[in-house]
Amino acid sequence: MDNQKNNRIVRITLEQPSLKNNTADADRLKAALKKKICTQNIHIDLKLLRQIPFLLRQWDYKVCCILFKQAYQYILLGIRDINEQKPAAGIAVDLGTTRVVLRLINLSNGQTLGELSFDNPQIEIGPDILARIHYTDIKQGLEHIQEMIINGLNQAVDSLCSSCSLSTGDVYLFSVAGNTAMTHLFMGITPHWMIREPYIPGVNNPGVLKADELGIKASPFARVLIFPNVGSYFGGDLIAGILFSGMNQAEDVSILVDVGTNAEVILGNKDWLIACAGAAGPALESGVARMGMMAGPGVIDTFEIDPDTLEFKFKTIGDIKPKGMCGSGIIDLAAQLFLSGMLDIRGKLVTGKCADRVKEKDGMLYLTAVSGDQTATGLDLTISQADIDSLIRSKAAMYTILRTITLSVGIELRDLKTFYVAGTFGSFIKPGSAISLGMLPDLPLESYKPLGNSSLGGAAMALTKDDCIEDMEKIRDQITYIELNVNQELMNRFSAARFLPHTDLSLFPSVKVWG
Amino acid sequence: MDNQKNNRIVRITLEQPSLKNNTADADRLKAALKKKICTQNIHIDLKLLRQIPFLLRQWDYKVCCILFKQAYQYILLGIRDINEQKPAAGIAVDLGTTRVVLRLINLSNGQTLGELSFDNPQIEIGPDILARIHYTDIKQGLEHIQEMIINGLNQAVDSLCSSCSLSTGDVYLFSVAGNTAMTHLFMGITPHWMIREPYIPGVNNPGVLKADELGIKASPFARVLIFPNVGSYFGGDLIAGILFSGMNQAEDVSILVDVGTNAEVILGNKDWLIACAGAAGPALESGVARMGMMAGPGVIDTFEIDPDTLEFKFKTIGDIKPKGMCGSGIIDLAAQLFLSGMLDIRGKLVTGKCADRVKEKDGMLYLTAVSGDQTATGLDLTISQADIDSLIRSKAAMYTILRTITLSVGIELRDLKTFYVAGTFGSFIKPGSAISLGMLPDLPLESYKPLGNSSLGGAAMALTKDDCIEDMEKIRDQITYIELNVNQELMNRFSAARFLPHTDLSLFPSVKVWG
Repeated sequence: MDNQKNNRIVRITLEQPSLKNNTADADRLKAALKKKICTQNIHIDLKLLRQIPFLLRQWDYKVCCILFKQAYQYILLGIRDINEQKPAAGIAVDLGTTRVVLRLINLSNGQTLGELSFDNPQIEIGPDILARIHYTDIKQGLEHIQEMIINGLNQAVDSLCSSCSLSTGDVYLFSVAGNTAMTHLFMGITPHWMIREPYIPGVNNPGVLKADELGIKASPFARVLIFPNVGSYFGGDLIAGILFSGMNQAEDVSILVDVGTNAEVILGNKDWLIACAGAAGPALESGVARMGMMAGPGVIDTFEIDPDTLEFKFKTIGDIKPKGMCGSGIIDLAAQLFLSGMLDIRGKLVTGKCADRVKEKDGMLYLTAVSGDQTATGLDLTISQADIDSLIRSKAAMYTILRTITLSVGIELRDLKTFYVAGTFGSFIKPGSAISLGMLPDLPLESYKPLGNSSLGGAAMALTKDDCIEDMEKIRDQITYIELNVNQELMNRFSAARFLPHTDLSLFPSVKVWG
Repeated sequence: MDNQKNNRIVRITLEQPSLKNNTADADRLKAALKKKICTQNIHIDLKLLRQIPFLLRQWDYKVCCILFKQAYQYILLGIRDINEQKPAAGIAVDLGTTRVVLRLINLSNGQTLGELSFDNPQIEIGPDILARIHYTDIKQGLEHIQEMIINGLNQAVDSLCSSCSLSTGDVYLFSVAGNTAMTHLFMGITPHWMIREPYIPGVNNPGVLKADELGIKASPFARVLIFPNVGSYFGGDLIAGILFSGMNQAEDVSILVDVGTNAEVILGNKDWLIACAGAAGPALESGVARMGMMAGPGVIDTFEIDPDTLEFKFKTIGDIKPKGMCGSGIIDLAAQLFLSGMLDIRGKLVTGKCADRVKEKDGMLYLTAVSGDQTATGLDLTISQADIDSLIRSKAAMYTILRTITLSVGIELRDLKTFYVAGTFGSFIKPGSAISLGMLPDLPLESYKPLGNSSLGGAAMALTKDDCIEDMEKIRDQITYIELNVNQELMNRFSAARFLPHTDLSLFPSVKVWG
């Protein structure tokens, strides 16, 4: 998806200066480039301009130029010997509140050279966005919190480059996708008014900055492309996700759901995009996103219940004794309990059907998913009625949001051609199980496309795609951001979605309800 | 000539942020500006971006923006309180090899606020360009010589601003016109290859730089517009002169002659421009440009000889006793000597006619222009036959160049509609006398237009004219630079021009040759 034809790297042999052609060095280079890549304007930083007469002669007027296309001009990011073998690199950054992920890219072909992630060092100030924004109100707070992320990034860039036998001087371009607050802290722009009515950011579209100016160690003329935001609650990470999915270029209407630290939904096609988030977030977060443990060795990610024998089968990551369940395992389990009749349409455990798998303790029912003799810890792995209730609330919230956003533009969920699932959510959800629970709409399974870290994917695409700035600005400008009004209609819809799979079974023709 | 309609200063009252309009601060400002000045792109430096949320609130979203139009975008040079009374200023710089002249301009209306000039501090390295270029070959030489001019400029900017009750922080824009070498030294770009075959500069079109990056003290986001050059021998000072004259926008063909440290001639109209210089320079310089003393109190700038009585009348600057003659006085004197028959058509003093005004000493004839009893010094003011010979060579060279350049495009001198005289030359030459000598073509006197310091004038225009960059680049691209070939044809033309006014009297119908 990210290997577009581009003019990032241009190898060029210039005509030697002569009495017949005495164009200046810099203008000679510009003229040749303009001809080759069909542009009117090429910008060269003063410090690079000063080096050009020496570099051109050193390399006998045969050079490799690294370029970046901004709206109306190309920026010359650097020039090298035409025979230089080391790749000119770019780094895509998913600037997460919790985790920062870097991907090193060969700018000439989009190839991934390496990846690295690190905890956002600002966690020291506070794990959540709010605490960090408040911190900027103290003297030098903004400078300090910016320094933390820049220093962290510099260390990571250094390690990542070393691991690929490159130096930081080989990095000419960065693209950074993050939520609005993280992006502001990264640039040292105050986020103070983002959390105060009417909640406005300092900047929506910062554009292209100099790495040097941000304190980032790279090639001296490197640039940093910052993904724009739509507002305080819809950041560049989502714009990157949309760019990565390609939904903004499709004829058909598709939907993108990203549940990471926040939950966001985007609906649209090449002509329009609507997004909603914010209010829906907390309801979802408490459930889906934080459910279960992190995926890892010994974690159950797949559950199956034989409908006849009611035998429980599971798979762990690494095929070792289970020590817990991750989100996808829990959704699988709940779906299978429902399909086998052990969970009723209200989401309540059917004690008769569950037989000796269910126990009561302090007035709460617990279902034993795996008995202690099979687990790594020797303890039973259980799921409580409260856990299931929470899951049901989450799935109802998710479905309500999906239904509301599609209905707001007069579309039925069944009309969606593609359903992109991004982020942590996308990586663990199994569409089949989620459909059985009525969490996701009853679309053909092939409609579901997991995107993985779509923010990083979009940032990486931007590194090699010539028109990335136009694309991302177009996406930004197209998005209509809607707040979900928590009114009676929405509450009715939510109530109807709290049944398994839904009060209106016609919405889920493929789900065979037990009995 | 320099007060064009422009978008330099835009006063704007923004819509206050609200839940209905929660566009970010910077983007709110940009959107309002884009609407007001009809542009797609506005660039804001990161450091200014960081201040915008605070500044907008400080001034209650009512601000005055200072803008500069680059090819495809406007650059926001600064924002101020809408009620700020002090003018936002720009400084035009005529970056001379010998003298640097500054003009402080009110950017909102083009009004001149003050002027100041100082000796180019690089004179310490060498009075001529060559010595300075060689100096850049020593270690740190380029850095040092650049520092000299930047420090000199900073002091001058400081004084000039103080004298107008402004601070350097009120200066948002500079435009700098100088010859190619001076411009390179100003930017710290090596001029090393300018004086080595094939004589190519480091850059022809440096464009717009940051004042900060050059070490110039001004408003933190100020820009410096550097006039482009055509080559090592045709600099931005001449482009500025063309811009100032407006010849590049006229239907009719006109000519511009600039004799300062060098001599240059430009011919053309809105469709084409040809220029010649270089080889012609030394011949002219030895004569016209360095002739006589600097104009000042007690210097004769006007001479008249009564054709009947042969009485000499003169005028001094300040109407005091004469102490010398400046160039215009000498040209007047020579013209009057010729018209009264005291100088023959070969430019030789006619001893019979001159009577007792002429004396011989060491085989050289001297004519007493003013006798000692009338002068400030008590000494006779004389002109020698050698001085006159030198003047004749100069005038012949000048006419030859003018004739050659016009003939090269098939135009007769008499077809020229406007004849611009710029620089020192333009300020002292009297067209009537110059025509009588055959130095300038026999055009109606009203065709002659003195431009004064056209380099400074053009630089000042650029400060307030929105499309100045397009204009100067267009001029640069239009110029065809021709070398004068010193061939037999040219030598013949030169010989014919050594007569007064010319061998071919039909070229000077208005000149009444004596006798």
